[in-house]
Amino acid sequence: MAKKNAFYAQSGGVTAVINASACGVIETANKHKDVIGKVYAGRNGIIGALTEDLIDTSKESAEAIAALRHTPSGAFGSCRYKLKSLEANKREYARLIEVFKAHNIGYFFYNGGGDSADTCFKISQLSETLGYPIQAIHVPKTVDNDLPITDCCPGFGSVAKYIAVSTLEASFDVKSMSKTSTKLFVIEVMGRHAGWIAAAGGLLVDHGIPVVILFPEVEFDQKKFLARVDENVKKFGYCTVVVSEGCHYPDGKFLAEQGTRDAFGHAQLGGAAPVVANMVKEALGYKFHWAVADYLQRAARHVASKTDVKQAYQLGKAAVELAVKGYNSVMPTIDRISDEPYKYKIGVADLKDVANVEKFMPKDFISKDGFGITAKCKRYLLPLIQGEDYPPYENGLPKYVTLKNIAVPKKLKGEFKI
Amino acid sequence: MAKKNAFYAQSGGVTAVINASACGVIETANKHKDVIGKVYAGRNGIIGALTEDLIDTSKESAEAIAALRHTPSGAFGSCRYKLKSLEANKREYARLIEVFKAHNIGYFFYNGGGDSADTCFKISQLSETLGYPIQAIHVPKTVDNDLPITDCCPGFGSVAKYIAVSTLEASFDVKSMSKTSTKLFVIEVMGRHAGWIAAAGGLLVDHGIPVVILFPEVEFDQKKFLARVDENVKKFGYCTVVVSEGCHYPDGKFLAEQGTRDAFGHAQLGGAAPVVANMVKEALGYKFHWAVADYLQRAARHVASKTDVKQAYQLGKAAVELAVKGYNSVMPTIDRISDEPYKYKIGVADLKDVANVEKFMPKDFISKDGFGITAKCKRYLLPLIQGEDYPPYENGLPKYVTLKNIAVPKKLKGEFKI
Repeated sequence: MAKKNAFYAQSGGVTAVINASACGVIETANKHKDVIGKVYAGRNGIIGALTEDLIDTSKESAEAIAALRHTPSGAFGSCRYKLKSLEANKREYARLIEVFKAHNIGYFFYNGGGDSADTCFKISQLSETLGYPIQAIHVPKTVDNDLPITDCCPGFGSVAKYIAVSTLEASFDVKSMSKTSTKLFVIEVMGRHAGWIAAAGGLLVDHGIPVVILFPEVEFDQKKFLARVDENVKKFGYCTVVVSEGCHYPDGKFLAEQGTRDAFGHAQLGGAAPVVANMVKEALGYKFHWAVADYLQRAARHVASKTDVKQAYQLGKAAVELAVKGYNSVMPTIDRISDEPYKYKIGVADLKDVANVEKFMPKDFISKDGFGITAKCKRYLLPLIQGEDYPPYENGLPKYVTLKNIAVPKKLKGEFKI
Repeated sequence: MAKKNAFYAQSGGVTAVINASACGVIETANKHKDVIGKVYAGRNGIIGALTEDLIDTSKESAEAIAALRHTPSGAFGSCRYKLKSLEANKREYARLIEVFKAHNIGYFFYNGGGDSADTCFKISQLSETLGYPIQAIHVPKTVDNDLPITDCCPGFGSVAKYIAVSTLEASFDVKSMSKTSTKLFVIEVMGRHAGWIAAAGGLLVDHGIPVVILFPEVEFDQKKFLARVDENVKKFGYCTVVVSEGCHYPDGKFLAEQGTRDAFGHAQLGGAAPVVANMVKEALGYKFHWAVADYLQRAARHVASKTDVKQAYQLGKAAVELAVKGYNSVMPTIDRISDEPYKYKIGVADLKDVANVEKFMPKDFISKDGFGITAKCKRYLLPLIQGEDYPPYENGLPKYVTLKNIAVPKKLKGEFKI
């Protein structure tokens, strides 16, 4: 096998552990110097490849690369950019080949979710379609946990842990206040289509917290919901609601779009939590507090799941090992063997089976009333939030690394407009 | 000194470390069994005293009491209830004395903020006004950090740490996304009158984060604000905004009240963050994300400041020691000796100087442009967020204690309506 350089890029929404996968890719590639030359990272994802804006990761110290393991966000920059089909935009593919050739790139590691798997799949076909020899491996990453085949996706376990921990703490708070003040706490979580993140709130039932979950998979029934909240407040003195941003009415309209208008009369974007809180106030009169975690949840490396961090690293490492073994058009996966004790192995999936397939919560993970999770779901979730993996702190704050991100000198003339 | 029982209660908004003060009070009282009998906690604050709903803390195990140190929220329940003046509501004071007499209570420990200091002060005067011998000691607590005399208030350091850590992480996130997507991240923090919590965002400037802070102490200037955000985005590619819930226009109108109406036409409560985010979008077109931390920030024991936890315990301990020494109508304080190395001693303040006095950010803590903090403010804040003090975890979640909270048998007949 001739020695080739590797390209690595981060794609889509970043997570608390995507850099742990980057760490796994780079450290493992460095152990295979016989076949892999340098690891070039795309500045801002695939855009870095298209614009020949490559970062030379060999210019970073070993300590800096190791620190990626405990640093949230995308250290090389990410992007939301989906390659069109070969037919629709041959120009982009021709450009990628031009850049890959110029920098002797034979390995393509793409770290992302469903859309990114599609881009990675298209690139994995370049050998067949345009005759350029490349091995493209997808490294799974998404807080939404909606990639198929793999049992879970790096990034999800840490968000689930964050939501469970934060909602537990806030529920203790509202319980303390409920006698004379707040009786309802609403937290809005990510998940436009799949309720995996919201499901983490269901873990609190075992801690005595009365939680009502509003999933995107369950059509919102206002009457039933209000009755449940009222029942909890009457029984426990308070109620916690975890509402997914994707929660919607039977007609598909999101709760967050419920006609809220700002001072200029424009529809106000976002905010299922305030809508739900005000709805309860209107109907039942309970004083409320609400929170929208937004980026805080997916960036919360300070409370990451040790299991998640470990798996993120392992899948980055596995991606490189698959490449060394000659694989193309695949994605390493987490294959669960048992729930308790939690055992899994690293498997491999064909990218054609991954790209553009969205994995929703199974029906038997949501309780019959639609407001909670089943024992089966709990067995699925619990292993993923196990263990703490604290970042080092300096002067009161986490010591996250910012890389030098030194550009590889350009070899091509002219600019590529994206 | 005749042996008397102690009454302890939690008041107002709870924090990540108010239970650490409770732990300090109870453990220290237990070391002075010669003069202090049992520690009775008020169920839901002062309401527990008025309704003779007392909790016998001696029924809890030593382990459970020790676990209060790492458990957020108010373990005995809190309340928002301010005693009126003796003239306005003599009935309440007569009832308190009735309950104190019935349960041989001679020590009154009240754990709260400004309003609570006022209640504690009124009770400390019972000996003079109504001839009932009692020693009332206030244990300071407030995330708002707005009590006078004491250098800082337990609860604040942990919120400051939470906001700094979370905003650092979210800023790393938005930086990763800024090339093709989100360029603005807005986080709303607590602080209706004082900008102490918002100030914590200013610590991120040393981490390379372009942060704009909107303080309640500074009248909101939309034009200047938008110009600053635009400047940051043009220079750094993104911008983080920390907005205090109390941020307001020159006419006193809160940003959060900016005429936002729900589907029913009702004024929407809360949400300075979405207002600010939409304002930037309207004027500059930048894609945004926003978060409202709400209870998550003050309940976040998982990322508490070790310094804060320690001080919360110390002040609980000091309150009991002051009582044993015969003090009445005082509050133990943190007296700072030096910033670096951080040194402080426990002092004592007269309650009459504490009650109903609100401490705002000093003018020289806010930068001249009004959007940041000064070096002096940084020197003040940094010691307060030092150190981590993680709770123990079990099965992926913090192991917070829920007490048995067994009621002391009632001795009085009849019910007291509050």
